[in-house]
Amino acid sequence: MEIDSPASHEKASLFSRVWWWFEALPKRLTAKVIETASNTKRLAQDDTRRVTHSIKVGLALSLVSLFYYYQPLYDNFGVSAMWAVMTVVVVFEFSVGATLGKGLNRALATLLAGALGLGAHHLANLFGHKGEPILLGLFVFIQAATSTFVRFFPKIKARYDYGLLIFILTFSLISVSGFRDAEILELAHKRLSTILIGGSSCVIISILVRPVWAGEDLHNVIALNMEKLANFLEHPSVIEYFNKSENGDSNDDKSFLQGYKSVLNSKSNEESLANFARWEPCHGQFHFRHPWKQYLTIGNRTRECAYRIDALSGHLNSDIQAKPEICSKIQEACTTMSLESGKCLRELACGVRAMTHPSSAKPQISKAKIAAKKLKLFLKSSLWEQDADLLAVIPSVTVASLLIDIVNCTEKITDSVLELASLAHFESVDPTVSPEKSQVGQGESDKPLTEIACPQVVIILDGSENENPPGPLTNRHIEM
Amino acid sequence: MEIDSPASHEKASLFSRVWWWFEALPKRLTAKVIETASNTKRLAQDDTRRVTHSIKVGLALSLVSLFYYYQPLYDNFGVSAMWAVMTVVVVFEFSVGATLGKGLNRALATLLAGALGLGAHHLANLFGHKGEPILLGLFVFIQAATSTFVRFFPKIKARYDYGLLIFILTFSLISVSGFRDAEILELAHKRLSTILIGGSSCVIISILVRPVWAGEDLHNVIALNMEKLANFLEHPSVIEYFNKSENGDSNDDKSFLQGYKSVLNSKSNEESLANFARWEPCHGQFHFRHPWKQYLTIGNRTRECAYRIDALSGHLNSDIQAKPEICSKIQEACTTMSLESGKCLRELACGVRAMTHPSSAKPQISKAKIAAKKLKLFLKSSLWEQDADLLAVIPSVTVASLLIDIVNCTEKITDSVLELASLAHFESVDPTVSPEKSQVGQGESDKPLTEIACPQVVIILDGSENENPPGPLTNRHIEM
Repeated sequence: MEIDSPASHEKASLFSRVWWWFEALPKRLTAKVIETASNTKRLAQDDTRRVTHSIKVGLALSLVSLFYYYQPLYDNFGVSAMWAVMTVVVVFEFSVGATLGKGLNRALATLLAGALGLGAHHLANLFGHKGEPILLGLFVFIQAATSTFVRFFPKIKARYDYGLLIFILTFSLISVSGFRDAEILELAHKRLSTILIGGSSCVIISILVRPVWAGEDLHNVIALNMEKLANFLEHPSVIEYFNKSENGDSNDDKSFLQGYKSVLNSKSNEESLANFARWEPCHGQFHFRHPWKQYLTIGNRTRECAYRIDALSGHLNSDIQAKPEICSKIQEACTTMSLESGKCLRELACGVRAMTHPSSAKPQISKAKIAAKKLKLFLKSSLWEQDADLLAVIPSVTVASLLIDIVNCTEKITDSVLELASLAHFESVDPTVSPEKSQVGQGESDKPLTEIACPQVVIILDGSENENPPGPLTNRHIEM
Repeated sequence: MEIDSPASHEKASLFSRVWWWFEALPKRLTAKVIETASNTKRLAQDDTRRVTHSIKVGLALSLVSLFYYYQPLYDNFGVSAMWAVMTVVVVFEFSVGATLGKGLNRALATLLAGALGLGAHHLANLFGHKGEPILLGLFVFIQAATSTFVRFFPKIKARYDYGLLIFILTFSLISVSGFRDAEILELAHKRLSTILIGGSSCVIISILVRPVWAGEDLHNVIALNMEKLANFLEHPSVIEYFNKSENGDSNDDKSFLQGYKSVLNSKSNEESLANFARWEPCHGQFHFRHPWKQYLTIGNRTRECAYRIDALSGHLNSDIQAKPEICSKIQEACTTMSLESGKCLRELACGVRAMTHPSSAKPQISKAKIAAKKLKLFLKSSLWEQDADLLAVIPSVTVASLLIDIVNCTEKITDSVLELASLAHFESVDPTVSPEKSQVGQGESDKPLTEIACPQVVIILDGSENENPPGPLTNRHIEM
């Protein structure tokens, strides 16, 4: 009995643990279900286009299934109708550009590979019953190895990767199945026409039912990223860094300032959007040869600015706080630099959004540059002589220096946006006209920062700005 | 005649232009061919695994084509053998992890969707000849819309995106084609078995013939990125910034310093490698549950450090040069911080590469921290009193401050690498043992910087370091 005791104890504890697990199961399941439901709701609310896209895919697939349901259509295409279903599933992407790109890649690659496969089949036929399979195997090997290697070229990978995949697939299928099937030409024809039907129904539905344009997304994401940086630079806690050090207050609403972080890693998203955008026909205010490359330049410069802001953010959050006496001296110039750079970025973003010439950004950037010059002159003056302790000066001087960097970055962004404006023939706005309202999109209602006034036109007569509050800015989250 | 003259001129000029175009064609074609050939050569030399991969795909595809060539195999599977060819083309990816992930996704999704499709087919059957197509269409719609929406969940998108695509595809095909085909069960069975044959031949070839492990790539890329930062920090032109300002020399070999730039945008590559790595079985020194997530943490911190280095680089390249007198005063501390941070990062990279405990990195980071402290103390001292002109101080103080930031970042990286070392049970090296040589890989022979000595063990007895030069470091370019 004494020997059994620990074992039975163990047994009991194991039993109670299993019991506890089963007892807690419904609770945990309910919690999981609630969590998933709230996640789903947030995902749908963040971007309602996701829901529309899902419905569109379902619609296209049901439509193409008609080929199977109705006798006359089925008699025409037979089992090949399967290719239409496959094409819809594989080709239908979130944006019109991606769908068009994939569809065109698929159609052209099928056509080309089908023709080449037929040729290979006929060539192999000449070598008799024994030579045919060897030669066909060799063709498939050479073709697959070459096409796979070509897929590594960065430029081809960006635009024609899917086309090459389908090229390998179709060539192998045609040249190999041709070995069996006498009616190979009919097969190729059926495959091509069903792919065309599937692909074109995708493209038509994706364009007609609430289209998602990659170009528009890129356009908005570039503007949004500039706004995020502007939100940081215009945020009270950045501006009050110098004031607060004076009061010794702790800055505790720093979570607001994390918006810029997503800009740091936006490169791959922007590049894929630009690649998709090139496939898109003209839509809305975007013409066929819209300068999408220039958006990437702006994006790169925005990221450079974001890196500086990241360094700045580290200093604002550091424990070593600047000395109040020093802060108060450079406060004005630094505040002006931060605010004016922020305003300039917001102007640029608004200009890009509304596709108007952001001429009103220029005064802001020159104000920021004047402030930077003033700061340099001020630092050169002898006012500093009494501060021998340089360690106390470092934090504020570093912040000031980073702000000067940010002003330079902002100037570069301004240049590239102005280049975009001239390349894409943005409307130039007459400064005497009354301010327009900006485009109103779905704003994030819980983030008041993104709803800061976005003046389209600034009347500069006596140096004062005339701002009017428009609707919230479009703040869509894009995940491709 | 007078009226005709401009037209004939135009004609002549058009003709001459066309003639010129055709004349120049061979030259341009030759130039294009030569350019493409050299591009191809570089692409192959940069990473010879690309060539191997292409050959592997060709091999797998030829192997699977046997199903068509040989009568007994064809008799068993018939047209379904096509699915094996398709599976190979679609599933065979560059790394083992990606191939395994896609293969498992495809097999499981086919199995699950096939079963559900069969169920849907039977359910629809109960509603008679009229109700069946309507109900099936509804099923397809609901299933496609739901699965498409589920693909938007970030976690599912990262690992099961392809599985969901195949789920939609198979469900649609099975439930719809079941409407026609009485032998639906046999079809499902054939499809599944051919997919298994195609998928397993991909996986076997990808593992047996010179395997490319995504985990190993991630491991190397993390080490390489730390080395890139070390290259910057240890580069003479960074260290001589303070000296050169003294001599007034212009730094013209700045192109060497651009290596770190690729680190800034490495996030998406690292994340996809980590996702692939999770699918991989144990291989080499990597066990099944290797802490791949920790690599992402190290990657994030390395990027944070790279942002600071980017800011530093801007200051080193700026026209406003620091005053020689000021430079000479903080030169020693700054040089020590930069060099020791660089050495520390190199130690960490070497430790990660060799999978040994990077205990020798700790002395370096503490040296860097001591230098940072010294600098702070020095700046606090009254030595600066004679320099009233703060503008002249700004450049060097900013550089010093950024270097202090970099030391902090390096400390964070050290912590996360040490955590990885304990999580992955890296070998701890006895410091009394004689130094080992590091793993020798394919180095870039034209870049001497990457061949800097990589001491595995540093004997610290009298504070001096004992370095021995091992082979070049593995410097593979990874593009996924």
